[in-house]
Order: sequence, then C-alpha cells, then structure tokens
Amino acid sequence: MATISLPQSPSLDSPQTLMMAPSSSSSTAPSSLTQDDLKKIAAYKAVEFVRSGMVVGLGTGSTARHAVDRIAELLDQGELRDIIGIPTSSTTHEQALALGIPLSDLDSHPVVDLAIDGADEVDPFLNLVKGRGGSLLREKMVEGACKEFVVIVDESKLVDYLGGSLLAMPVEVIKFCWKFSAERLRALFEYAGCTTRLRLSGDGKEGEPYVTDNGNYVVDLYFKREIGDLSAASDAILRLAGVVEHGMFLKMASTVIVAGKHGVRVINREGGR
Amino acid sequence: MATISLPQSPSLDSPQTLMMAPSSSSSTAPSSLTQDDLKKIAAYKAVEFVRSGMVVGLGTGSTARHAVDRIAELLDQGELRDIIGIPTSSTTHEQALALGIPLSDLDSHPVVDLAIDGADEVDPFLNLVKGRGGSLLREKMVEGACKEFVVIVDESKLVDYLGGSLLAMPVEVIKFCWKFSAERLRALFEYAGCTTRLRLSGDGKEGEPYVTDNGNYVVDLYFKREIGDLSAASDAILRLAGVVEHGMFLKMASTVIVAGKHGVRVINREGGR
Repeated sequence: MATISLPQSPSLDSPQTLMMAPSSSSSTAPSSLTQDDLKKIAAYKAVEFVRSGMVVGLGTGSTARHAVDRIAELLDQGELRDIIGIPTSSTTHEQALALGIPLSDLDSHPVVDLAIDGADEVDPFLNLVKGRGGSLLREKMVEGACKEFVVIVDESKLVDYLGGSLLAMPVEVIKFCWKFSAERLRALFEYAGCTTRLRLSGDGKEGEPYVTDNGNYVVDLYFKREIGDLSAASDAILRLAGVVEHGMFLKMASTVIVAGKHGVRVINREGGR
Repeated sequence: MATISLPQSPSLDSPQTLMMAPSSSSSTAPSSLTQDDLKKIAAYKAVEFVRSGMVVGLGTGSTARHAVDRIAELLDQGELRDIIGIPTSSTTHEQALALGIPLSDLDSHPVVDLAIDGADEVDPFLNLVKGRGGSLLREKMVEGACKEFVVIVDESKLVDYLGGSLLAMPVEVIKFCWKFSAERLRALFEYAGCTTRLRLSGDGKEGEPYVTDNGNYVVDLYFKREIGDLSAASDAILRLAGVVEHGMFLKMASTVIVAGKHGVRVINREGGR
C-alpha cells in the first residue's frame, strides 16, 4: 500500500502566487474561482514538470486541455523546446496539431518521459477512475508507458474510495453482444449494488450509443458500495471476454496535483511508480 | 489440476462404425483417411451430444464447419428440432443462415446449452489454443457462456503444452499502436523465446493486416519454450492496455473429441466445467 506524502517543497507556491500564473485569471479573486479556474491552476502547475527535450503524454478532457494549451504557449514563447507530444485521443491529437505541438505515437516513442492528464476520481492511495470522457484505453496505454504520470484535478474529484462519487466507472466493451457483457459486469459486482448503463452519444444523435476512438462501446458502472480489492476487481473485469479495458488506473499516478479554493496540493506516491 | 478420463462408454463406437457415419466417407478405407475426413468424424461425433430444444454455440473453422453442416442435415431430416444456433463469427453466421438453422445471439440467449468448436492446440489438461482462424473473441464469449463445451480436433492438434506446436498463439489487439502492444507481448514472454508477428490478410490483399470481426488486429505469438503458469500468463496478457483478448482457452473445454487414424477418443474433463 502506498503512503502519501504532502511535501511542502520550495516549489509548492502559495495559492495566490499560483493564481497569478494563468494569464486569464490574473485578476480573479480567490473567492470567485470557478471550477474551470481550478482546473487551469492544476494544469499550469503540472506543466512546470515538463522540461525541454521530453516526450510528453498529452491527456484528454477539460482539465488536460489546459495543460496542452499551456505547453503550446511555452513552446511559442521559447521557454520549452524539442517537445514531442503523444496524444491520448483523436480529440487531443487535433487540439495539439492545431497548436503546432510536434506529435508522435507509442509505436515510434514507446517510452514517454512524462504524461499529464485529468481524472474523474482520485482515492487516498492515488488510484484513479478515468474515462468518463471516453478515452480511457489510449490514455491507459500512454500513461502506462510513462516514467512519471502527473494527474491534475480540482478538489471535487477526491473520493474516499473508487466509485465513491456515485458517478460512472466506464468499461470499454466490444459492440458484439454488449448487453451480455453489461450483464456479466453487473453480476460481477452485485455485492456492491452495481448497476450498468450503455453510454450514449452526446453529440445530438439522440439514443445512439457512444463509440470510442477504437470503435467500441462504453458500459458505465455505478456502485452503491465499495468494491473492495481493486486489483482483484481489475483482473475479474479483464477476464470477461468482450471487455477491452476499464477505467480504473491502479498504482499508475506518480503525482496528483489538486487545485482547491484554498490552494494547490501536490501529492506524491511514495517511491514514484 | 484436472485429471483426464478416457471413458470406454457404450456410445464410443469403434472407428470403423464411426467412419460409416459421414455420408461422404462411407466408402473410405481407414488407411486413406485425409485430415478433413478426421475432422468430419470428430464433428459428427460431437453432434451426437446435441438434443432437440437446445441452444447451441456454433464454432468457426474447417472442423466446426462440418458440425454446422451436420446439425443442418439432422434438422432437415427431422432428427433434431427446435435448435437455436449462436454463431461465433460472421462466417459461421452466414453458413448457418444459408443452411436454414434458426439463429440468435448471447444478448437474447445468454445461456448456451452446448457449444461445438475446433481448436488449434489441446494440451493434456484440455486447455486450448484457439483463434488461428481469427474468431477467438466471439468464440470465447459464446463458449464461456455454455454449460458444455465440446471440442473437436484431429490428432495433429494434441500438444504436450500450449505453444508446443510452434505455431501461432493469437492475441487480438486494438489497431492503435499495435507495434507497441506487440513489443510488450514479446517482452512479457522473453523467457520463453517469444517472437511476434502481425497477422496479414489471406484474401489476396498482400501485406494488408488481417482485421477481426471486431475491427481489431491479431498479433501472433510464437514460443520456443513452455510459458509455464497459464493462468498467470493469461492475466498478464489481459492486463496490457491495448490487448482485447488472447487465444488461450483455459479450463473451458468439458469434452474433447479426437479423431485419429486409429479411432476416435472422447476425453472428458473430470467434473465437467
């Protein structure tokens, strides 16, 4: 079990100082910070970990988007150079391409120096739920291949246990007989009061299933109670034929940056990854 | 560890009698049996397990094809009725449809009474390698959902250990960064002298990757030595993000029917599944 240290390192700036960093929020008073402001604060803090010459995994979602913007900004300003970005979704690929960040992939760069991405839930051991944005599989490939994985969240994402937000834990399944897979997933976690729902597309095609970058469906799992041993749960899910991947990222995060109304916390997993 | 019984039950006919059963081989002398004759003998024997009213998983490949033909024949003759077939591939779906076998799927029939399918390798504990035909994922879903799974092979498929044929153990991977996934698979089994190869399409599009029914690629693994603990190997493969499924079917077969030049053997896994 990893222990959590809350370093008070010299680089851990006070919230006020940090809030000056994002150019768009320099005039924002602490009390009026929006959730998006917090996401941006965490993202900018994470980009401080990026050094010139690095291969950087680029996350997906509303928080990671700010990190990608910031990396592009620093490249433009000449404060960073020789960065190679590895996008974790086609959405991020397009964003980074438009911003002029040089891109590659895991086939050409199988070792990633650092990845920065958001998360939907973070438990006290820095285990994550990810993939509510739908890119869990490519994210897991890139973030599993990196030396350091910096997770950026606003404080609303902290949970006592995975599933504790009562929001979705996504599982990517093949389209073929997805109802069968959903029922097997539900039965697997019946003890935790699990219910499942096929994710639908949010792009206006009402009632159409959401389709991942890999051509699969997503079944969202909702738990009423703790699921217990996460490693065992992970293996049990992966053993179901028809399941491609799930959204639990266990023992993967090396650092979590949490932005809250009262400041920024940098939490390291002891011993790194 | 399962033990293997070799029953000499009254229903285990002598090879001569069995060889009379397939109509097309009734004039074939034992010594001139082709591999396809042996496949047909095993397939016809397996169809004796089918009873009217059953939901039957229909396998894929050159051996299973004979079983599907035979089921259709018995339906036509009125010797079987009320069969619902669950095909394990689009190829088998088309074959069964053309033969007039009523079909359904796992979403509508999540419990399958009996499945009949071939295998590429069978070890002494009735663990299998399947999927050289490319349908491992749907096969595993259907055959994992059945009460009885009857495997039909000619004797060339018996191996001392999985991988022992030195032929492919297929792994279905997503297209995204498949080279990265192939390298991680190779590294996982470096101790067993593993090499990997992307499966190419056999339909004349030279050099084009083979694409599964689920839109994925297949990386074939070749082992120089035994891989050891199969359950551990299975979990290790499934834990790789990017892997969808692999071709090891562990503790799934309830019965293996082996047709050889000297007769037919019916091998039961003790205690069934």
